[in-house]
Amino acid sequence: MADLGEWGVIAALRERMPAGPLTTVGIGDDAAVVTTPTGSVVAAVDMLLEGRHFLLDRSPAYDIGVKAAARSLADIAAMGAVNTALLIALAAPGTLSASWATDLADGIAAEATRAGAGVVGGDTARADLVLLSVTALGDLEGRAPVLRSGARPGDVVAVAGPLGRSAAGLALLGAGLGASVPAYQDLVSAHLRPAPPYDAGPEAARLGATAMIDVSDGLIADLGHVAEASGVLADVRGAGLETRSLAAAANSVLASQEATGTRPADTGPADKGPADKGPADKGSAEHAPTAEALALTWVLTGGEDHSLVATFPPSVALPPRWRIIGEVRAGAGVTVDGAPHQGAGGWQHFA
Amino acid sequence: MADLGEWGVIAALRERMPAGPLTTVGIGDDAAVVTTPTGSVVAAVDMLLEGRHFLLDRSPAYDIGVKAAARSLADIAAMGAVNTALLIALAAPGTLSASWATDLADGIAAEATRAGAGVVGGDTARADLVLLSVTALGDLEGRAPVLRSGARPGDVVAVAGPLGRSAAGLALLGAGLGASVPAYQDLVSAHLRPAPPYDAGPEAARLGATAMIDVSDGLIADLGHVAEASGVLADVRGAGLETRSLAAAANSVLASQEATGTRPADTGPADKGPADKGPADKGSAEHAPTAEALALTWVLTGGEDHSLVATFPPSVALPPRWRIIGEVRAGAGVTVDGAPHQGAGGWQHFA
Repeated sequence: MADLGEWGVIAALRERMPAGPLTTVGIGDDAAVVTTPTGSVVAAVDMLLEGRHFLLDRSPAYDIGVKAAARSLADIAAMGAVNTALLIALAAPGTLSASWATDLADGIAAEATRAGAGVVGGDTARADLVLLSVTALGDLEGRAPVLRSGARPGDVVAVAGPLGRSAAGLALLGAGLGASVPAYQDLVSAHLRPAPPYDAGPEAARLGATAMIDVSDGLIADLGHVAEASGVLADVRGAGLETRSLAAAANSVLASQEATGTRPADTGPADKGPADKGPADKGSAEHAPTAEALALTWVLTGGEDHSLVATFPPSVALPPRWRIIGEVRAGAGVTVDGAPHQGAGGWQHFA
Repeated sequence: MADLGEWGVIAALRERMPAGPLTTVGIGDDAAVVTTPTGSVVAAVDMLLEGRHFLLDRSPAYDIGVKAAARSLADIAAMGAVNTALLIALAAPGTLSASWATDLADGIAAEATRAGAGVVGGDTARADLVLLSVTALGDLEGRAPVLRSGARPGDVVAVAGPLGRSAAGLALLGAGLGASVPAYQDLVSAHLRPAPPYDAGPEAARLGATAMIDVSDGLIADLGHVAEASGVLADVRGAGLETRSLAAAANSVLASQEATGTRPADTGPADKGPADKGPADKGSAEHAPTAEALALTWVLTGGEDHSLVATFPPSVALPPRWRIIGEVRAGAGVTVDGAPHQGAGGWQHFA
């Protein structure tokens, strides 16, 4: 990128970006101007860092662009808003190629376009690592925002979009199995290029959702934010979760870990002090996770799918893509079938 | 910061932030909601990086916060808009102290408050260096944005806010003279904590400014962006520039450089290949810059003051803080007294 110079990089990125239907002034002036038809703007910022959220040698630049955009776009959808605009801050080493930067831009542009947003501004800088900070703007179309704090006892908990597929893809990549089975490539893709169901956000708002969040840190963790903000308990029904499509991948990952001695249940104690040794570390033979348990762990604790989880009054007739997975009760925290989530068979280490 | 944990850091930062008068939903949900009374939002993002824009051992955390906020807030003002909201993305090493983070937050909060903006969202991450990405949102109050592209031949060029003071402060810091004279501390402060005249932006718009930009890269460079976008030439009158208040500092910096042998005119060739040796490198005796020339260079090429430069039709009666410094003509580029800026006595290296 150093060859192109900052202005060359900016020009190359700029020409790849969608303008967006509501953009009055796009990239190129001191700031952008975006129309807000109903008198308010929804805004969120998220960072994506090399080493923490992706590895340069594992993630193509296009995929990094998709993921960086998706994280912020999903936040806007989780408010019940439609996405209107992105602003991108990119720090990167000068040693990266210009095609790396344009591939990144293509990924950002594709995901912004899928969400209906323009890319209206940005900033670039040289740094020793790749860091993307993406600000997303959205419009509520005159509705009230769907906050995390509105869930009430009696509401149903429903999810739009997949759960656990990104975690399964990450595990397959870690086991070197990403390319072994065609179906696994879909899971790897789900990890590298999350595809949040953006339009399900405004749909949920129109249906009367009482609270909503996107699954970035895992279902249990993110539903926990809703439960805490709302002052309620969310109980997930294990039987309502879709784990069958992940069973084959879980089997393959376990078999690979068994063969290479890298199963977390075996290696876990090495990462912990003696004081931390508890019942879960009593030897792998007794506590070897089953494929079913591993798939369930992916579904309950895997993040980065950026699916939407919302609560609705029980009287609401939900369209098919909103799958009911539990209910809201008086209390605090998140339970699975009425009990605290125990890590699905000694798999606390995984999360 | 590692002791506090990400949530502890976020909580400590959050409680220091102004909400902002137009904020409906602030920090803490998936996204913020900010009212846009006139149906559009102005948005800009800027990054501030350790090593490039500041040094941790030279800049207090509070000052880094002020500077990070000011850069983005000034972009909004340069569109003729009032600032409404900031979103902050902060990457930092876990080894920094919690008080460093809260001092940073105090600086951001103070500058946001000075500009009338709330801090409505953010993201934090662990990284090996400190990086801030600040997104600013603003409101045009029903006016059209003041773009870079509207300058017309016959317009006057006027500036609100100081020029060259940040560059003078940086030079004083570099020469170890920051604390030697009380007046110099004001210049050092101007470098560490820029104070853009935010309200001059909407004022210029109301007065009928035809183009505007904030001085982040230097008067010549930024006026060059206006000239290019507008398809005109901007001529600056040297006599209209205020250099007297910088003369004493320039004298001190030159004397210090003479005493320590660090004058750029002497050391310049060491940074360049033989092919680059030109007339300007013919020996320092012939080309030693005068204090007057150095002060002028600070004014013409020093960035980071984030003052506002605008063009106005000649008929506009400007309030005193808008100082006329030149005029717009047919042509291209930026001239000083009708001639291309030559670096004020061999000081091209400085910029």
